[in-house]
Amino acid sequence: MHIAIIGCGQLARMIALAGMPLGINFSFVNDNASDSDTACVDGLGSVVIWQTGDNIGQLYQSLGRPDVVSVEKEQVELSLLRGLALYCTTHPNVDSVAKCKSRIKQKQLLRELNIPCADFSHGQAVSSLGERLGFPLVIKSLEEGYDGKNQWVIRNRDDLVNASPKIAPDSYLAEQFVHFEREVSIIGARDVRGNIRCYPLTENQHDKGILLASMAPAQKVSPAMTNAAEDYFSRLVKHLDYVGVLAIELFVINGELLVNELAPRVHNSGHWTQLGGQTCQFENHIRAIAGLPLGNTEVQGNVGMLNLLGTNNPPMNSLTASSSLHWYNKQPKPNRKLGHINFSASNHATLQQQMASAAASIDINR
Amino acid sequence: MHIAIIGCGQLARMIALAGMPLGINFSFVNDNASDSDTACVDGLGSVVIWQTGDNIGQLYQSLGRPDVVSVEKEQVELSLLRGLALYCTTHPNVDSVAKCKSRIKQKQLLRELNIPCADFSHGQAVSSLGERLGFPLVIKSLEEGYDGKNQWVIRNRDDLVNASPKIAPDSYLAEQFVHFEREVSIIGARDVRGNIRCYPLTENQHDKGILLASMAPAQKVSPAMTNAAEDYFSRLVKHLDYVGVLAIELFVINGELLVNELAPRVHNSGHWTQLGGQTCQFENHIRAIAGLPLGNTEVQGNVGMLNLLGTNNPPMNSLTASSSLHWYNKQPKPNRKLGHINFSASNHATLQQQMASAAASIDINR
Repeated sequence: MHIAIIGCGQLARMIALAGMPLGINFSFVNDNASDSDTACVDGLGSVVIWQTGDNIGQLYQSLGRPDVVSVEKEQVELSLLRGLALYCTTHPNVDSVAKCKSRIKQKQLLRELNIPCADFSHGQAVSSLGERLGFPLVIKSLEEGYDGKNQWVIRNRDDLVNASPKIAPDSYLAEQFVHFEREVSIIGARDVRGNIRCYPLTENQHDKGILLASMAPAQKVSPAMTNAAEDYFSRLVKHLDYVGVLAIELFVINGELLVNELAPRVHNSGHWTQLGGQTCQFENHIRAIAGLPLGNTEVQGNVGMLNLLGTNNPPMNSLTASSSLHWYNKQPKPNRKLGHINFSASNHATLQQQMASAAASIDINR
Repeated sequence: MHIAIIGCGQLARMIALAGMPLGINFSFVNDNASDSDTACVDGLGSVVIWQTGDNIGQLYQSLGRPDVVSVEKEQVELSLLRGLALYCTTHPNVDSVAKCKSRIKQKQLLRELNIPCADFSHGQAVSSLGERLGFPLVIKSLEEGYDGKNQWVIRNRDDLVNASPKIAPDSYLAEQFVHFEREVSIIGARDVRGNIRCYPLTENQHDKGILLASMAPAQKVSPAMTNAAEDYFSRLVKHLDYVGVLAIELFVINGELLVNELAPRVHNSGHWTQLGGQTCQFENHIRAIAGLPLGNTEVQGNVGMLNLLGTNNPPMNSLTASSSLHWYNKQPKPNRKLGHINFSASNHATLQQQMASAAASIDINR
């Protein structure tokens, strides 16, 4: 079996590393040749450059005629996915990627399925947003929305007046600002036969939109919260006829969940699944898209992940018997995700302590 | 960091796949170009052919100037290892490989350390072996002794008379035949600072010297047996100043352990460590030889491994939520180890049942 991944980053890397033990071969599409660093996937399979307008049949041949094409990101040109879908299976399907890629289509999908999310507005004159949503509110670009990029908080009428001339009504989505208590995510997979497995809820710590750390299972989670999250997951993937891993970021407010964002792919907040005894999200993505049964998603003990942001060298000295390192071989830059460390412990307090101690000793360059 | 492995088989493959997430690069020595199939390591790093007499400095350059050289087998030409040791670190050290490679040196080492093994004789006239060891006895070549190869059971005086003219006294080792109840193994690692971690004892099922299946933790193992096995492991690795993973095959007789064989490398009976929540033997070998602290070796639940012998295609349909496949990409041949499946279960009975059911449904071609 041969799988091609669109994208050449660390997610493509870890998908390939999880699939290679199964005897699966990989190739990668570099669809962003101008600024993409493909070092993550060096040596894991051939990398083929594709730019808008390039022949897709030729791309398919150069990729080695893959059986399945998948993505490591939602910001993929839809014509590329649609074109490849004429030659082979694409998981997730084009429609799912299209809906997750666009902030407004995502919101409309959630509204259609009655899945709670922050109230939003689109296509309305910027000056009238205060009346519609109240302050503070958030203005977001329609695409390119990962890692907290391309969004602005509007605190009051003055902010709105200043922002107004810069923003055409059709180019943005406005949302109520959510005063959330904490952020969790649910990651799960759906296989080609429609079976679904979700990992336990994960609690995430962000700073300026960038994920710093995750811990699972999330603490102080009621069965009702888990049920709600799994229900949203299930309704979304069934509605989309989605195959593969999908992640949902959620805000927690008074024990209720509000969907923040969907990611049609493996997700940074699921990297901890590489430890803890279950099948990791990368292998489950592979299993799903390769037509195999999903692997176990139950975590043993407590597991966490610390992103290595801007860390120049793999922090080998911080490794312990209960932690493991994943290093992406990328060019170091401040704030860049260059690797992560997973931690496991028998209880949450020990996990927190281990992660705090590692975070203090590692050169994190934000 | 760059590590070179001597050998291009499935053990080299799995060592590399375990090391790549750590950002480590690999290259491989094909020291047996005439009959070696390097498909296992295709795409995981460059493969350099070396034959007796070839320049070793040049080999070191072609391998990409590795920081550490290791082995996936004991049948390595010692001049190759000694030569590479002039350029970089070799783990395990040459002496350890030399002692494990030779059946007689292995036996002498065990005797020197007072570690129990079957009584043996070397250099004695074949005709007198009956008096010395009793019948049945086993005659073994001095090298090339893996997978039950190159050994013959001598049942009685007639067998001995027939075998006698074919065997020069110095070319063999003779051993008492051990009427063992079952076979177990202990696998562990020693790091560069001398720390040791062992996995729980594993019970192994062989047929004609080839491993069929392993289950861990081995059942009906007293603390005294575990202590003895760990003591033998510890005395061996300390004496040898061994760094890396080492495996000891043991016979169980009346609750006592007798060492059968040593392997200075990761071992087929430790493949189950890829499941069960701990650090797998491949990653612990990497951690040891790369100067990193060893990872956790405590298994959660019950874990087993089934070898895929002569199975033509990866048995994707036999995968379940609690099993995982490792496929080596080798050319299929009857009896060849082409992959393995790992299984995990909450208890031994369920594990046995899962493995039996998989074994029955998979085309194992012996």
